[in-house]
Amino acid sequence: MKIVDIYARLKKDLNAIEKELEASIHSEHAMLKETSLHLLKAGGKRIRPIFVLLSGQFGLYELDKMKKIAVPMELIHMASLVHDDVIDDAQTRRGQLTVRAKWDNRIAMYTGDYIFAKALGVVTKLSNPKIHQIMSHAIVEMSIGEMEQIRYFFHSGQKVRDYLLRIKRKTALLIAISCQLGAIAAGAPAAVSRKLYDFGYYVGMTFQIRDDVLDLCGTEEQIGKPPGSDIKQGNITLPVLYALKKPELRGRLLEELERIRLLDGQTDVGRFLQMVRDSGCIEQSERLAERYIEKAIRSLDGLPDIQAKKDLVRIAHFVASRTN
Amino acid sequence: MKIVDIYARLKKDLNAIEKELEASIHSEHAMLKETSLHLLKAGGKRIRPIFVLLSGQFGLYELDKMKKIAVPMELIHMASLVHDDVIDDAQTRRGQLTVRAKWDNRIAMYTGDYIFAKALGVVTKLSNPKIHQIMSHAIVEMSIGEMEQIRYFFHSGQKVRDYLLRIKRKTALLIAISCQLGAIAAGAPAAVSRKLYDFGYYVGMTFQIRDDVLDLCGTEEQIGKPPGSDIKQGNITLPVLYALKKPELRGRLLEELERIRLLDGQTDVGRFLQMVRDSGCIEQSERLAERYIEKAIRSLDGLPDIQAKKDLVRIAHFVASRTN
Repeated sequence: MKIVDIYARLKKDLNAIEKELEASIHSEHAMLKETSLHLLKAGGKRIRPIFVLLSGQFGLYELDKMKKIAVPMELIHMASLVHDDVIDDAQTRRGQLTVRAKWDNRIAMYTGDYIFAKALGVVTKLSNPKIHQIMSHAIVEMSIGEMEQIRYFFHSGQKVRDYLLRIKRKTALLIAISCQLGAIAAGAPAAVSRKLYDFGYYVGMTFQIRDDVLDLCGTEEQIGKPPGSDIKQGNITLPVLYALKKPELRGRLLEELERIRLLDGQTDVGRFLQMVRDSGCIEQSERLAERYIEKAIRSLDGLPDIQAKKDLVRIAHFVASRTN
Repeated sequence: MKIVDIYARLKKDLNAIEKELEASIHSEHAMLKETSLHLLKAGGKRIRPIFVLLSGQFGLYELDKMKKIAVPMELIHMASLVHDDVIDDAQTRRGQLTVRAKWDNRIAMYTGDYIFAKALGVVTKLSNPKIHQIMSHAIVEMSIGEMEQIRYFFHSGQKVRDYLLRIKRKTALLIAISCQLGAIAAGAPAAVSRKLYDFGYYVGMTFQIRDDVLDLCGTEEQIGKPPGSDIKQGNITLPVLYALKKPELRGRLLEELERIRLLDGQTDVGRFLQMVRDSGCIEQSERLAERYIEKAIRSLDGLPDIQAKKDLVRIAHFVASRTN
């Protein structure tokens, strides 16, 4: 079975979510409408809504409730991206100009605030306080993760576990709670929503590791932005951390890192990328991602063998090997 | 009776809120703790918590519930200030360096996100969905107001009603819901919380008009930042809008505005300030502020004559004439 089959099966509900996403950011305010729609139309895989929909099928699935989880999950993700792009001085994302590039940093900041506020507006329509608590805790952790990222820019002394904690906060948590809250909103038992949380967490870790690998190895066409964007801004990712552990590479890598830092990322990073690509550390990172995927799939043990479970397994494998 | 008497009477509860504010932004993350505490310790009048506490006395007052409204209200206010300072390139606020000046814009952005997320974390401890809905609606409106402010920078064709709608969103709404939610959390009847909302709204309008007047007429010592900050960044406030309506002033004011705009605010604005001060438009603005205060006080008609009501009236008068 292919990923497109899963999309096809969920198509009707994903379309409903897409409509709701658009409705939720609607504003009489022309500029906010324009910036928010620009973001929305730039696309994205809608991976969080998909996880909400699939997880909801382990309980009493009601599209109306699913929408009220899926829409804020995607909006929170979008809001964090637009703030991220400010931090990263990003020019493009998914092959499109970022809000900060098309307008400016200030407008991007407020667009993020606005979309975030709209996300809350949707979720308050659900009256389960547990949902609100889980969501607000995740948002706090996400903002800590974002700040951590700044602190660790060009910080070659960081450990692999610093990296893992950072991507947990930055990416994995929101995917984990997308699964968890989909199940909770559908009234699934606590044991089920816990398993789905674990599944989402491990898939999220893989997702970000794969993202970081693609930034080092992908083409601009694949990843919608120039490769090497991470290292230009000082974001040291897993393959680089592994490579820094190799005595024969460490000296040259540190030299390159310092050069990139001093030039504020305004330089060719081809040599740096090549060193990492040739080091075997990409493969090492992919092996860790694979281990997370195995854990993700094991987390589903004990859940009923419904179609949604097969779909989750399929998506997990896809996430580990995706090329865009 | 003086304002200090009101503070004295509320002191115990305000101290409890201050403690809770500090606890709520606590983080093992050193940088976030530092930036957030810097903001918190820079002070402020805690006007929103005071309104929550006084409004709660029209119902069954429980400090524990009051805290869960007062703390997020103040945190949301703080988060919006720190983002505001990024937009305004502000160096100082309340006589202290801003987060963006002491650290940088990126750190300020994420500090705002973090404090905002923490605010949500506190309010989710209350399970009344109406409270969440009122709060999220206000936050959406606030972010629209902030974006509006950017759009209207140096926009001399704007109307007084554009200004009034902007300050409603930017300032008055949060004060209005501080009163309203204080009452709701204390279980006061809907008619009471509505009156208190109106009261807060009118006081909030006065508060912002007074703020804008002080930026034109106050000393740096009074206002904690150099006077004329608004016009340097292009923020056209009520007295300036009134002055622009005067045919004998309009031409010279527009010339000055254009000069300030072209120099990106990096110029002396003394002549501009003097023209506005001499125009009679400060007094005209103060008269509008006074009218709002009268409306605020009339909004309290029909509420029981408890001490809190007298205190609210006293604070309303204070807000209209405050000098810092």
